[in-house]
Parts: sequence; structure tokens; C-alpha cells
Amino acid sequence: MAEASRRLSRGHLALAPSPQDSIEETRIRIHNLCFLGFGNVNRTLVCLLADCEAELRDRYGIAYRITGIASRRLGWRVGAKGLDSASLVALNSDSIAGGWQTGVSAPHTSNVRDWLAAARADVLFEATSLNVQTGQPALDHIRAALEHGAHAITANKGPIVHAYRELRDLAAARGKRFLFESTVMDGVPIFSLFDQLPAIRLQGFHGILNSTTNVILGEMEQGLALDDALKKAQALGIAETDATNDIDGWDAAVKTAALITVLMDVSIRLEDIARDGIRDLTPQALRNARRDGWPFKLVCRAKREGAGVKASVAPEKVLASSPMAKISGSSSYLYFETDIFPGLALTEENPGLSATAYGMLADFVRSVRNHAGDS
Amino acid sequence: MAEASRRLSRGHLALAPSPQDSIEETRIRIHNLCFLGFGNVNRTLVCLLADCEAELRDRYGIAYRITGIASRRLGWRVGAKGLDSASLVALNSDSIAGGWQTGVSAPHTSNVRDWLAAARADVLFEATSLNVQTGQPALDHIRAALEHGAHAITANKGPIVHAYRELRDLAAARGKRFLFESTVMDGVPIFSLFDQLPAIRLQGFHGILNSTTNVILGEMEQGLALDDALKKAQALGIAETDATNDIDGWDAAVKTAALITVLMDVSIRLEDIARDGIRDLTPQALRNARRDGWPFKLVCRAKREGAGVKASVAPEKVLASSPMAKISGSSSYLYFETDIFPGLALTEENPGLSATAYGMLADFVRSVRNHAGDS
Repeated sequence: MAEASRRLSRGHLALAPSPQDSIEETRIRIHNLCFLGFGNVNRTLVCLLADCEAELRDRYGIAYRITGIASRRLGWRVGAKGLDSASLVALNSDSIAGGWQTGVSAPHTSNVRDWLAAARADVLFEATSLNVQTGQPALDHIRAALEHGAHAITANKGPIVHAYRELRDLAAARGKRFLFESTVMDGVPIFSLFDQLPAIRLQGFHGILNSTTNVILGEMEQGLALDDALKKAQALGIAETDATNDIDGWDAAVKTAALITVLMDVSIRLEDIARDGIRDLTPQALRNARRDGWPFKLVCRAKREGAGVKASVAPEKVLASSPMAKISGSSSYLYFETDIFPGLALTEENPGLSATAYGMLADFVRSVRNHAGDS
Repeated sequence: MAEASRRLSRGHLALAPSPQDSIEETRIRIHNLCFLGFGNVNRTLVCLLADCEAELRDRYGIAYRITGIASRRLGWRVGAKGLDSASLVALNSDSIAGGWQTGVSAPHTSNVRDWLAAARADVLFEATSLNVQTGQPALDHIRAALEHGAHAITANKGPIVHAYRELRDLAAARGKRFLFESTVMDGVPIFSLFDQLPAIRLQGFHGILNSTTNVILGEMEQGLALDDALKKAQALGIAETDATNDIDGWDAAVKTAALITVLMDVSIRLEDIARDGIRDLTPQALRNARRDGWPFKLVCRAKREGAGVKASVAPEKVLASSPMAKISGSSSYLYFETDIFPGLALTEENPGLSATAYGMLADFVRSVRNHAGDS
């Protein structure tokens, strides 16, 4: 499965199972998958799914066909009989129109609800761009998917912060799952871990959750100015073209809010998180701090206080021998304080580019595995 | 819930739900629980269950009554109508006979199968002492429970190493669960974490998994001789009376074998793990190593080699700034290498005494939550 991201460029992919597999359909359920947003994450996901098709079928009794793809560039495409993975991944190239038409019938619809219906969606993979302030349009997409009767799986943090309880309750009412493992720590199963910890009480957490700033701080310690460090992070494929959300601490704050909302069951607004980015730090200050044994890190913190939670995102000096000081590059770290486990920490070192897409694949298995009975 | 172990001595416990709760029995399933071995782990578990009775009922629709307790001292006790938690925990005191008889009907049976049948067991909590070489008698207990039609939950590593595939397949054939989260890292959900990672390939792992030797090595670095360091670990409640299994690396080797067997799906015998304990280390050697920046740790390692796995348990010098060097006292650490996550590490700091029992409680919820349909 580690080959997946390389396969993106090779276009050497197994086909998604075709509807002709009806002999096995009695035992192996075929799920109609729809992909909203077709950038790196969903494209890698298509490859991962093709890569582990045999394992999903043999081990979990799960088969799939891709019946919908939508993005700003592609519009709302439907292939109710199943689109083939190889053609889809060819969309990676510039010849979108050409790739799209290779043997695939793909009519348009004009909005998300019609699209989900025409594609007979069982699962929506939502991976549009994050709007920190509103959670849109991802929020509307997820609501539409659940109301249509599909599981909703997102890599988008916005909907959790802005509408977690509504979406969770809507999913429960429809007997579907709303899952979002890829939103924090690139698909490391944080939310699933706590789902496995009944009756535990999370008192607080701290950690490093934004890779872009972590890479930038490391480069600035070596003497680069912020802008040059950012360019390096972009060249590494870690930072996006517009890194404002990262540098000003918004991305880390949204992740912090998501963890508080879901794992501590406390509603918190983004503006309630004390937020400070890395814009005011100079290479000199960073170098001195590292030299003195107390390097700067952009640290997320949350702690129960009364019925609420006090939370912050800010550059902090951390002891050089502490676990957080060792988190370099695109690695991340989360330390949880619970009643049963006083200190439980997860470290993710140098995740591959497919880790986020993998988190969505794992969510797919979770959603259909636990609902094997419905059809 | 953190109060549980303290409550052991106070005896201030809610009662287990009585059979009179039949109004709710249509929605809330009452499970008959049996406890085999009644030392610290199962006793603490009884307290934890009482502590979170309301949450189990309200959040998971799970209720229970305790219908069987067995140990070498108590024999095979049955209370088909439910034994009350307060009386059971009173068994902690020396007045076993007195405590047992407080209002509870508790006839004897003479073996595990009759006992499970008389107690109409839905779940067995197996926590007898570990026999490293055979996995007995835990193995027979678990086999009997699954054949009776109960979920089998154990804190015992032996049966995994000696009969994992047989027990896993037997559980699957009976539609029951065989769960053992407490066997490694005191109930931190290691096995459950990987159960949430479909289609991932574990290439290898390393870590520190034996608390007794970790405490002893720390004390010896301060100058204590092995025997005195062991006494200190025993006084802290970390080491058992007979710590041979720990000091000679057996406990760490069994845990390593369990992880390899379950998570890497490779059969390995204990004798295939290169095993070296801490008996030959002197306080002087340990002090020098720490002073030189390369302290000794008892490290477990596993790595795929061809179709097999190469594994070892041995004292190793680790770099003072590495994560393993920071693992002190009863803390533990596991670093996993996988295809998707090149490095994924879990650290458990200073687990409370209830962590192992908690792992069994979480297994209970997992087993009955995923099988809500059967009855």
C-alpha cells in the first residue's frame, strides 16, 4: 500500500469492481463512493482504495464502485455504473477532458443533492478547501450527504468546529456515520482511539499539530527569514500556497477546537481560543532560544476549568530535553491527561503524503464495517 | 472514575443492577459477568464497573450483574441472581467467609464449565496468574468460556502466545469476542488501535514494556544493588513477590510475542525471541552508562525478515536524548514502523493501579457493543 502515491503518476491501477460482480453481491456489499473535491487527498484516496481492493474484499467483505466525482473544475460528475480508477487518476494530468471521456459515461448534475441522488451515494468523501470562519461549503455537503442517507467522511476541520453536535445527531438519526479522522494528525486514529476508551475523562491535552509552522520554525533556527522558510516548506510539499491559516495559528486553533469539541464534549468557539501565530518571531530570537536549551514551538493547549475548557495556541519555549522539543519537520505530537492514564502521548514521525488519504480510507472501513446490517 | 482504587478500601460502592430491572431489559441488555481469579485486577474491575454503571447504561445501553466469582481460595462460586458488588469487594478483607455470606446465595460448582453454565455467563474476565511456558490454566478457561458462548476477556498474555489463532477462530465461530487489551501497556488500547487501522502493514516495533525492570534499572543507577532495587519496586506495588519473570526478561518476551502474533500476524515461539534479562548488570555499569549519555534500558524489538520476524529482548544502551531514555519508573513506550505511518509512538506515563482493570472494562464495552444484536 506504500506504493499508492507513486502510482498516482504511473496510472497503473486495478479497476474498481464492476457491477457484474453480482454473484458476490449477496455476501460482499458493494458501496457507491462519491468524492467531493478532487485535489491531492481524494486523488490519493482513489489510489489507496485500488491498492487494497483485494484486502478490503477478502478481510472485511467490502467492495466499492466510484459513482460520483465533483470539484470546482470538473463540475458534478456522475457515473452510476461505476467510474474506473485509472481514468479518474488520469484526471491528475492537464488533459482533464480527455482523461474523463475514456470510456466513462459521466453526465452532469447542478448541485450536491442531485449529484448524491444520481450517484446513489453510500459514502461521501468530502475534501474541499477549509474555510476556517464558517466551515462552508463542507458543512452543507456533509449535511446533504447524511440527509441523503450516506456516510459522511471528511478531511475538513471546519464542520466539526461549527456544527459537530448537529452533524453527529443527524448521522445518528439516519443510522449513518460522520467521521473525520484525517482532520488531526494526518489520519493517526486519535478520535478512534478515544472511541475505544469508554467512560474515560479527558482532563486536558497539549501538543504540536501544525506541520507548516513546525518546519518553518526549524528553518528559521538555521537563520532563514520567515518568507524563505515558508518557501522551503512549500517546496517540500508541506505548506500550501496560502499559508496564512498556518502562520497565524488558525489551523492549529481549529484542530484544538475539534479535539475539545469531540473528545472533551465541550462546545468552544474559535474566538475563545487564545491564539498567537509565529509572525512576530525572528530568526535571531529562535536561534537564541534553541542555543539556550529552550527552543520555541507552536504549542496547542487545552485544560478543563469548571464546566468549560481553557485553550490556547501560541509559540512557547519548551525544555530542549522535553518530548515537544524533539518534534521536528512534519512530525506531530499529542499528550493527553486522563483520569485512568495520567499521561498518554502519541507521536507521529514524518508522515507520508498518503497519511491523510489513508485516514479517510480507514474511516470508510469503520463506517461500513459497523453498519454491515443496513442496506 | 479515578476514585475506583481508593474505593476498594472504603467499600462504598453502588450495587450491581438487580434482575428486577426487567422493565428496561428490552432496551438495555443485562450481561451476566463472571470473574476468574480474584486478585487486584478483577477486584479493581468490580469497583470500576460499579463506578461507571450509570454511564455504561445511559451511553452504551449496557447493564450487568455479577453471577460468578472463582479463585483458588474461594472455589467456584455462583450467584445466578446477581452478587452484590459491596459484598464482593468486602472479600478483599480477611473475613472472606463473613463477607461472602452477607445476603448472597453462592453455591459451589467443581469446575470451570459447570461454573460458567450455572452462572449463565455472558462474559468471562480471566485474570489468573501467568504461566509463561504453557499459558495454562488461563488457556483452558478461555476455551471453556468461548465454547460456553461467552465473550472471553483476559489480562493474561500466555494464551495469546500459545493459542492465539485457535482462540481467535473459536471466538469467530461462536460469534463472540476474545479480547486482551490489558496484556500490553496496562490497558492502553494498542490492539484496538491497530484494529482501527485496516490494510496497514506493521514492519516492526521497539519499546519498553516491563515496568519492574525499568524501575529496578533506575534504582540501580542510583547505586542500589539488584536485590535492594527489587525490594523498592515491590514496596511501590510495581513488582510482584516473585519477579523472576520480569528480571529474566520473560514478561517482556511474552509481550513482544503477543504483539508479533496479533499485530504482525506471524506465529512466533517464545524460544525464537533472543532473550536476555538484567541480572548481569551491575550498579556501577549502569551508573557509568548513564554518565556517558547512553543509559541501559530493557528494550523489546521486532522486525520483519522475509516471511518471519526477528525479535529480541535485551538490555541496550540508548542515547540519553532518545525517547526511550526518558521512560522512567512504571512508564512504558512503543514505537511502531508501518507503511503509512513511518513512525507512530505511544508513551504511557505513570499509569495508575486501575489501568489494567480499566483495559478489561474497555474490552467488555467493545465486546458487547459490537454484538448488540445477539442475545
